[in-house]
Amino acid sequence: MDDPQRLWSPKARGLVPYVPGEQPKSGHPVKLNTNENPYPPSPRALEAIREAADAGMRLYPDPDALRLREAVARLYGVTPEMVFPGNGSDEVLAHAFCAFFSPGHPFLCADVTYSFYPVYASLYDLSYRVLPLAEDFSLRLEDYPATNGGVVIANPNAPTGMALPAAEIEAFLQRNRESLVLVDEAYVDFGAESVVPLVARYPNLLVVQTLSKSRSLAGLRVGFAVGNPSLISALDRVKNSFNSYPLDRLAIAGAVAALEDREYFDRIRHRIMESRERLREGLVRLGFEVLPSRANFLFARHRTLPGQEIASGLRSREILVRRFDRPRIGDFLRITVGSDPECEALLSALASLPNISGTAPTAPAK
Amino acid sequence: MDDPQRLWSPKARGLVPYVPGEQPKSGHPVKLNTNENPYPPSPRALEAIREAADAGMRLYPDPDALRLREAVARLYGVTPEMVFPGNGSDEVLAHAFCAFFSPGHPFLCADVTYSFYPVYASLYDLSYRVLPLAEDFSLRLEDYPATNGGVVIANPNAPTGMALPAAEIEAFLQRNRESLVLVDEAYVDFGAESVVPLVARYPNLLVVQTLSKSRSLAGLRVGFAVGNPSLISALDRVKNSFNSYPLDRLAIAGAVAALEDREYFDRIRHRIMESRERLREGLVRLGFEVLPSRANFLFARHRTLPGQEIASGLRSREILVRRFDRPRIGDFLRITVGSDPECEALLSALASLPNISGTAPTAPAK
Repeated sequence: MDDPQRLWSPKARGLVPYVPGEQPKSGHPVKLNTNENPYPPSPRALEAIREAADAGMRLYPDPDALRLREAVARLYGVTPEMVFPGNGSDEVLAHAFCAFFSPGHPFLCADVTYSFYPVYASLYDLSYRVLPLAEDFSLRLEDYPATNGGVVIANPNAPTGMALPAAEIEAFLQRNRESLVLVDEAYVDFGAESVVPLVARYPNLLVVQTLSKSRSLAGLRVGFAVGNPSLISALDRVKNSFNSYPLDRLAIAGAVAALEDREYFDRIRHRIMESRERLREGLVRLGFEVLPSRANFLFARHRTLPGQEIASGLRSREILVRRFDRPRIGDFLRITVGSDPECEALLSALASLPNISGTAPTAPAK
Repeated sequence: MDDPQRLWSPKARGLVPYVPGEQPKSGHPVKLNTNENPYPPSPRALEAIREAADAGMRLYPDPDALRLREAVARLYGVTPEMVFPGNGSDEVLAHAFCAFFSPGHPFLCADVTYSFYPVYASLYDLSYRVLPLAEDFSLRLEDYPATNGGVVIANPNAPTGMALPAAEIEAFLQRNRESLVLVDEAYVDFGAESVVPLVARYPNLLVVQTLSKSRSLAGLRVGFAVGNPSLISALDRVKNSFNSYPLDRLAIAGAVAALEDREYFDRIRHRIMESRERLREGLVRLGFEVLPSRANFLFARHRTLPGQEIASGLRSREILVRRFDRPRIGDFLRITVGSDPECEALLSALASLPNISGTAPTAPAK
């Protein structure tokens, strides 16, 4: 056999994998490209991890991660049977696409949204129908057709950062009762409204969250879904047909402690929301159009400079932001809200770019 | 909508999930049911985990876990491009079934083997052909048909513990060059021969191992595959279409340190092999037939007592072993080789069962 690529399954050949933001292996750039939290995780979470790193690591973790289900249940006033934890919200989403969407019944999603959704579709041979966001990038659920094979909404949406009020999602649930409505709330803790309180009334609503952003635990890989116990059962069936123990002992221990430290959580997420407003003002002063964000990032394009030019100018100044080479948004930059010094470094670097317009108070006069 | 189960996809309905061995949530039974290592992980692994539990947890892990690929590559004298790490060998196997097997092209596997293989088949709509082990539970690759959609071999086999010499697998590879040969070496470090040295010569050979057993890290969830770079590319495509970051920062740090501590690894695996022989002799004295094992467990049936009766008798004495309610093996018990005191507790408990035959030196006279 000359070419082992012949051994690839037709499915493996057909996949168009997701490309995550760069994780630099060297150097210490100002890293505003993957929406990580600028603050460390709760000290209680780190302590719980260190304590769990003992001889007990020789034993398998609880395959159901019941302690973690209970911690999420306490947080949201639901029962543990309404919680499904996974190896990051990406794994939870993957299992949900497999458990609730079917080939031949297209699910609906926006044209500008989390780009992993179409990838899951290719993994599970699903079809989907793309519904464009409005001109101002708002998501108009009133335009979504009543007959569908499921609906996926990121709220706040990524990479726009724009959020729908819970009431609008509820109005949609009122008329869309026959298919799953999956609401991806990865960024909800930065000022948007969660629809978790609606799961008790809408058995077709599944809400997915992550500890990567608002709990500063991107490095721990923990996400979860909340929904009707029957939906959770389906997710458990898929998970138990794929990997019995997706969450290691350290992830379970750290996630439980992080969820229990509500005071720390509130402190850092509010700090980030405040930084976001200052960063937004700074970008506007430099001539950027900035979409209204309820997330820990801003989505912004400059009035005159192409996005690619700005991104590469920043990169040469050791600042990473993310740009998507896709229709409608190629000139936008997705900028993570970092610490205040990081945001100031970004604004200074932008002000130093040739041809930037606007007046930048932090930039030296030229 | 009255019954949210209506929302399950046909695939979710059709799955028959894997059932892992019991992880008791309370009490401290002698736990010989899930093939965990009785000894703690390398102290260096635990130290590396504690050191990684720092502010850096706010950042995503390296999606490629390159450090871990490099550590495996150093261990086996291959290149990092020949290594694919995952969230336990179960996840690695799942991705391999997706990447290399196709609907309509049945893969081959034994009737008595790791029962997750048919589960992956249902997850990915694969078909398979079951080839019975011989009467003595040996695997006869010479009987495997030349035309197939892939071959899966657990070596040592589970739950029998019996191993094939590497030369027999190589002889099979000589004549089976057109489909993937997946060798699951979860238990190889307890006295069997690895076929990793063959991957350079056979581009259709993929070898999967885990850190759960011989590295005492079942609680960390790390496994890996070694094979031709083209095979690894296919696995990366599937992984990147499912979950970009399946290995958290702690798992990467702990796994690298565990793989580097070869002295500790050798010490504990040899201790377990010695305990295995003593346990085997004790079981034989109590009237058990014990299959020849190269794993960290023994597969044994009693000459007169039914397996179910023994298992429940042990359970009432706070000792857990595993029994599979399946054809051919319903009377066998799969008994993990524990520490010497655990093995002695097992033999004493067995000797105390009513109607046990044989003479048990460790049992009180009746």
